[in-house]
Parts: sequence; structure tokens; C-alpha cells
Amino acid sequence: MNLLRDEQLDDLQIKDLKIIQKKTGFKFGIDAVLLANSAKIGRNKKIVDLGTGTGVIPLIIAGKTSNNKIYGLEIQKDIAKMAERSIMYNSLEDSIEIINEDLKKASQILGKNQMDIVLSNPPYFKDAPKELQNPDIRKLISRHEVKCNLEDIIKSASSLLRFQGSFYMIHRPSRLIEIVTVLRKYELEPKEIRFIHPRENKDANLLIIHSRKKANQEVKILPPIFVYEGENYSNAIKEIYKKSSL
Amino acid sequence: MNLLRDEQLDDLQIKDLKIIQKKTGFKFGIDAVLLANSAKIGRNKKIVDLGTGTGVIPLIIAGKTSNNKIYGLEIQKDIAKMAERSIMYNSLEDSIEIINEDLKKASQILGKNQMDIVLSNPPYFKDAPKELQNPDIRKLISRHEVKCNLEDIIKSASSLLRFQGSFYMIHRPSRLIEIVTVLRKYELEPKEIRFIHPRENKDANLLIIHSRKKANQEVKILPPIFVYEGENYSNAIKEIYKKSSL
Repeated sequence: MNLLRDEQLDDLQIKDLKIIQKKTGFKFGIDAVLLANSAKIGRNKKIVDLGTGTGVIPLIIAGKTSNNKIYGLEIQKDIAKMAERSIMYNSLEDSIEIINEDLKKASQILGKNQMDIVLSNPPYFKDAPKELQNPDIRKLISRHEVKCNLEDIIKSASSLLRFQGSFYMIHRPSRLIEIVTVLRKYELEPKEIRFIHPRENKDANLLIIHSRKKANQEVKILPPIFVYEGENYSNAIKEIYKKSSL
Repeated sequence: MNLLRDEQLDDLQIKDLKIIQKKTGFKFGIDAVLLANSAKIGRNKKIVDLGTGTGVIPLIIAGKTSNNKIYGLEIQKDIAKMAERSIMYNSLEDSIEIINEDLKKASQILGKNQMDIVLSNPPYFKDAPKELQNPDIRKLISRHEVKCNLEDIIKSASSLLRFQGSFYMIHRPSRLIEIVTVLRKYELEPKEIRFIHPRENKDANLLIIHSRKKANQEVKILPPIFVYEGENYSNAIKEIYKKSSL
């Protein structure tokens, strides 16, 4: 396995899976781990990760489940290549296919109404004014709505999913109202929302929303997750990492 | 103070306030206490409680604040009379006025765009099929959307409120998506949502949503409240009752 000079090989803490990341670039965070662990997946499912980056979500899912086919779409060519090399390194070519394409074309490539599950850990921030933009173009694209916005992602997810198929997204609670409005516009009905708070007495800073295509109108607010207790990760977070490493 | 044969005088646990309730009818619950304690009120405000029932929310607010004018609208004549008698009993006629009218007419009576704060603890359930309806007509009206639905309440609140005025409502999380959709339809922008869970590991069964008229689009998810810890009320709930009784 040859790593480029600016790359490092990180442990995913799931079985013995490894992931290639840039030493100074955008690295996967707890968000991706929480999202990948929220999805109820089963077997023989067709799954898409929209904006897969270095492939962390397909890798976690492939590590935890079996007999599923996972497609990861990534618009940035060099990042998509890194994801492909991580998949080869872990010998997961049969389970995961990385597609270096714009997620707006996802259903042209993968077909309409075919997928069982779509996931996305999209850019959280609206397209920033030029002077505030991150000088690292890869980080910028990962964090800001430069190449695609919330509506592009939701539209693409809806188009890919079969009737009653599931869309899991992690995002910022500040955009909750916009998120649910756009989901409904594309017939994705919110069914479960879990809020993640840094600590028990703090406002939520993340949400995971599970919608289903053309489902009935009733949503559950799941028990919250608090990330820290004192200086350490909470038991809930430790549990998620423990489950991932089974 | 003469109580009717089917009435009882209950302690509000706020200063020495008392409230008249039917012995076997709909009684105020923790919902009303949570809602009344969520509102940031200040002084010299004009406040409306839509569907005030026995007047519990105006009574709590009048007990906790000063120099405010609180209007309580109640469509059921006998319940409105009970609320009026509770207000007389507590000598709060200067602060609270009960209006025995349909809340759909609120802004005809109180004027458009005049109020600082509107609150509502509305019926949570859609109008039930006849065979499932509560035989107690008063309970039925308090719990089911017989006399008014969610949209009637939100429309009325929006019409009453001044620019940037606040609307506080407690409701069921299962209807969250409908609630935020209708709020936005009437230019009430959700700004803060707090979810209330019976216990830390259970789904939320109540939410308190604070919207402001024509505010900008950004919502905060406040720290959750868990009602019980083991067999007892949680510290958060004890704190709310303690604050109320200052």
C-alpha cells in the first residue's frame, strides 16, 4: 500500500478497517460515525451515500453488515480516488463502489426509485461569502454548499429511493425548519429525529433525521445523545464506538 | 367563596394561588405549568392565552410577574365562569380578564398586531371518530380538535401579535412537522424548541415551541427536560415548581 506524502492511514476502530485521509485536510468526525450507526440496514439492500468524501460511511456500513451493495458518490476526483484506495486496502470492492460524479446526477447513473437506503453527511453551511471561504478548496466543498445545496441532496435522495425507502441525514439543528420543509417538498416524510447535544445542559448542535418516501405523517423524537460527560465521552458515545468495533 | 357541588379548590403551588376545578373533569397538568414557565415575559406586556380553560396559565403568569395584562379566551361558558371565579378568589381582576369567546374571533375582540405574547395549550388530538369520543363534552373539547384545530389557533396567534411578538405553544412531538409548516404559513418563525421526555431513554411526548412573528430563519433546540428520574420527579421539574412558588 503506497501512501502519498500528504496522506495518512487511520484506524476506523471497526474490525480492522483502515481509511486513507489527508494529513491536513478534512477528516471524518463523530458526525459520520453517528450517522452510519443510526441507519437500520439489514441484508441485501442497495444503499447510496451522497457526498461520500473519503468513504467513511460506506466503510463503516460494510464493516458492520453483510451482503449489501453500497454506492458512494463523490464529486471531487482526488478524494474519490482516496476512497477507492481505502476500499481496495480493506478488500471491500465487492461491497462498495465509489462513483466520481456530481450527486445531482445520482438517479441518472443508479436509476430512479431503486434504492433501499440513502445517507448523507452534507455540507452544513450555506455558501460562504468569498472572503470567509476556507482556503483549502477540499475543506470548503465538504463544509459549505458550494457544489450542492440542501435541496439538491434531498431531491437526489428522493429520486433514488423506492417507495417507503429510508433517507438518513445528519445536519445542524439551526436549519431544522428548512430541512423538514424541503424533505416534504420531495415526498420524504420525517419519521424519526434524534438531537445530539455536546452536553446535557447545552443546545443541540447536530440532528439525525430519518425520513421515508411517501410515508404517513407522524414523527418520533428519539432520546437525545449527549456527547460529553465531564471531560470524557458519554457512555452513549462509548457504546456506539463499541458496537462499531464488534 | 362558594364552590358548586362538583367543584374543588386546588392549590397552584405558586404563592398562595388557588384554582377552581371540576372534581371529575379535565384538570390542568404539568403541560400548563411547563408552558407558563417557558415564556420570558418581563413587565407591561399584553398577553393572551388561547383556550385558557380554568385559567391556569394566566394565574401562574400573574403569580410570577407584575404589571402585565393577561387575557384568557375560553369558548365553554361554564369553564370560563369557573376561571372568572378563580380570578376573583385570588383578587387578580386587575391583571387577568377572561373572555368567553371563540378564539377564532380573538383579533376582532382584542385588535390585530397589538399583543406582545400569545400562549396556547391546545387540544392535542385530531377530531376523533364519534365512537372514540370522550363522553364528557368538556374533556372532549379540551383534548380533541372539536371546536378549533391547530391552524385556527396559529392563525389567531399570528393575527394578534405585533411584529417580533412571541407565540409559545405546547403540543405533541408527533405533530412537529405539521406544527412548523402551519406556523410558517402564518409568518410565525420557530426560534426555540424544547422537547420533554418522560425519562432520559424514552421518546419525547411533549414539545414547547417558541415562535416569533416575521423573525429570521434559525431555530435553537434547547436542552431537553426529563420528567422522571426513577420513581420521582427529576430535579429539572422540581426546580420549575420551586421557581413557580417564589
